[in-house]
Amino acid sequence: MDRYDIAIIGTGPAGISAAITARVRNKNIILIGSRELSTKIEKASLINNYPGIPAVSGEQLKEAFLKHIGSMGIEITEDKINAVYSLGNYFVLQGQNGSYEADSVILAAGLSNVNAYPGEEEYLGQGVSYCVTCDAAFYRGKSAAVIAFSDKEEAEAKFLAEIAEKVTYIKMYKDSNGVEGTFAGIKNIEVLSAVKPVGIKKNGMKVILETQAGGSYEFDGIFVMREHVAPKTLVPGLKTEENKVLVQRDMSTNIKGLFACGDITGAPYQYVKAAGEGNVAALSAVAYLAK
Amino acid sequence: MDRYDIAIIGTGPAGISAAITARVRNKNIILIGSRELSTKIEKASLINNYPGIPAVSGEQLKEAFLKHIGSMGIEITEDKINAVYSLGNYFVLQGQNGSYEADSVILAAGLSNVNAYPGEEEYLGQGVSYCVTCDAAFYRGKSAAVIAFSDKEEAEAKFLAEIAEKVTYIKMYKDSNGVEGTFAGIKNIEVLSAVKPVGIKKNGMKVILETQAGGSYEFDGIFVMREHVAPKTLVPGLKTEENKVLVQRDMSTNIKGLFACGDITGAPYQYVKAAGEGNVAALSAVAYLAK
Ligand SMILES: Cc1cc2nc3c(=O)[nH]c(=O)nc-3n(C[C@H](O)[C@H](O)[C@H](O)COP(=O)(O)OP(=O)(O)OC[C@H]3O[C@@H](n4cnc5c(N)ncnc54)[C@H](O)[C@@H]3O)c2cc1C
Ligand SMILES: Cc1cc2nc3c(=O)[nH]c(=O)nc-3n(C[C@H](O)[C@H](O)[C@H](O)COP(=O)(O)OP(=O)(O)OC[C@H]3O[C@@H](n4cnc5c(N)ncnc54)[C@H](O)[C@@H]3O)c2cc1C
Repeated sequence: MDRYDIAIIGTGPAGISAAITARVRNKNIILIGSRELSTKIEKASLINNYPGIPAVSGEQLKEAFLKHIGSMGIEITEDKINAVYSLGNYFVLQGQNGSYEADSVILAAGLSNVNAYPGEEEYLGQGVSYCVTCDAAFYRGKSAAVIAFSDKEEAEAKFLAEIAEKVTYIKMYKDSNGVEGTFAGIKNIEVLSAVKPVGIKKNGMKVILETQAGGSYEFDGIFVMREHVAPKTLVPGLKTEENKVLVQRDMSTNIKGLFACGDITGAPYQYVKAAGEGNVAALSAVAYLAK
Repeated sequence: MDRYDIAIIGTGPAGISAAITARVRNKNIILIGSRELSTKIEKASLINNYPGIPAVSGEQLKEAFLKHIGSMGIEITEDKINAVYSLGNYFVLQGQNGSYEADSVILAAGLSNVNAYPGEEEYLGQGVSYCVTCDAAFYRGKSAAVIAFSDKEEAEAKFLAEIAEKVTYIKMYKDSNGVEGTFAGIKNIEVLSAVKPVGIKKNGMKVILETQAGGSYEFDGIFVMREHVAPKTLVPGLKTEENKVLVQRDMSTNIKGLFACGDITGAPYQYVKAAGEGNVAALSAVAYLAK
């Protein structure tokens, strides 16, 4: 496997800035996120306070960032990282589409207001999973639930239904395209849309999903598919406070070689603050690699 | 005197960014520095890592910043601040051209590698001065030296020569325009250009300038005219370390209501880091004012 100097997780202004500065410093980087960059960029209708680019829409700022990285030959690897493991002097990143290795990591994954369900972290790897591609094979001929926070998970559920005997799709988002249409003709997917999970328990080999209404459902496995992974879940051992990564002024975290920047480090939630911190995180990673 | 919500000292990327965000937040601000913004912007021949504005010259980045503040109606007050005094719940700023009052202050004055001469701070206000406009009147019929670190001080020396009996102009910069030409016909200005000051002493009412060569000169007053004022000299009581202002992650300093951002807070020395910190400092000042 390729071992990168720096793996950057997230393609908002923080990750983009970190990638640009790391590239200026000739590092071998991998930038993981989305080619659409970030919904937080795209959705802004008017941005007045990104210095040097007055009165732009989010779409225009996105184009400016894409042009910038394009001009430097920086590519985006489309993936979502589910876990980052520090193995002493290097890191392994586990994504939906594969694994990556890097000597240092910059976490630029944006704000996460995610709180894990009670039991979720306890049973992770023992019936709870964050990655269909990685774990679908365990559910051949069995039953599995997908708790889905965006319509991206519809494709994951379809793939899972090719392997599992039964898939229960718990839809946690507003449905504009009509999920029933997407799943039309697939007999082993059942959609639940008025269910609010509140906790996960175990009963022998089975996992039990408890709901706010007081009911419970039993499965062989539960896939929790959030848009954001809580930082502590993403990086075991990472020091956080209310889902914010604790950083020093040089953007270092409590884990040697792992830096964080942007919304994930806390307020204020602003483009140029995120970009400034990305720049600092990249230079700190460069200094770390030099040692 | 007008009392501003926020006075911003410095017109590099840190000060520009602070001004833009403070204006977005509807604050009554004064932005003090130079209409040329910053030599550190102007002098860059190629900037690759200001996200969203790829491969620009310093001149182009300067134009982008000027256009941005222009579009928001933000004006620059041309002045150099010599001292900032915290008077409990507001600040008084002493500039070359006047005084300003503000409820909060953002220090964005850039990197200063300045170390005061031994004796300089001790005799400040007792023979040592940083401001010709402010203190020239004290030297009517007397002798004064101007230790000048840029050709901007030539105009100051000429003005001083209208009042003082004798002006000794100690030129500390490389002279491209020919200072003798500038002073042609002014009989009471003497130029010294091979003198390196090493300390200031007092002898009764006189101030003594000691030089590296071992000699000394006696004057009634000495104007020390540096491009940068050391942060500690600029703001009495400010906590610094090796000329860097000590700040928290929210850009607050040890002085209530006074924030710092950009190169003045330490490495890395980078445009987008400075701009990011300016944004944070402005929002912290806004939060401070709300209390
Ligand atoms: C509608 C709106 C308007 C706004 N207007 C302004 C404004 O005018 N001015 C201003 O300064 N700010 C504004 N903001 C705030 C600004 O958008 C954010 O502060 C900024 O985008 C934060 O940048 P970031 O890089 O830290 O995170 P984000 O922009 O959130 O980017 C995070 C990135 O990480 C990716 N990611 C997350 N988890 C993973 C994972 N596990 N694996 C791989 N990738 C992952 C995400 O997909 C995303 O690409 C606005 C926000 C919104 C929503
Ligand atoms: C040649 C060169 C090339 C560079 N290239 C890059 C690069 O490619 N990428 C990058 O990211 N960075 C680069 N830098 C670094 C970058 O220029 C600085 O980090 C950045 O300008 C710092 O911004 P600032 O706002 O903190 O301070 P500055 O830009 O130094 O601005 C400080 C401002 O405060 C004013 N000021 C100071 N004292 C006072 C006072 N007492 N009263 C009133 N005003 C005052 C000054 O006149 C100036 O306007 C380069 C620097 C140089 C010199």
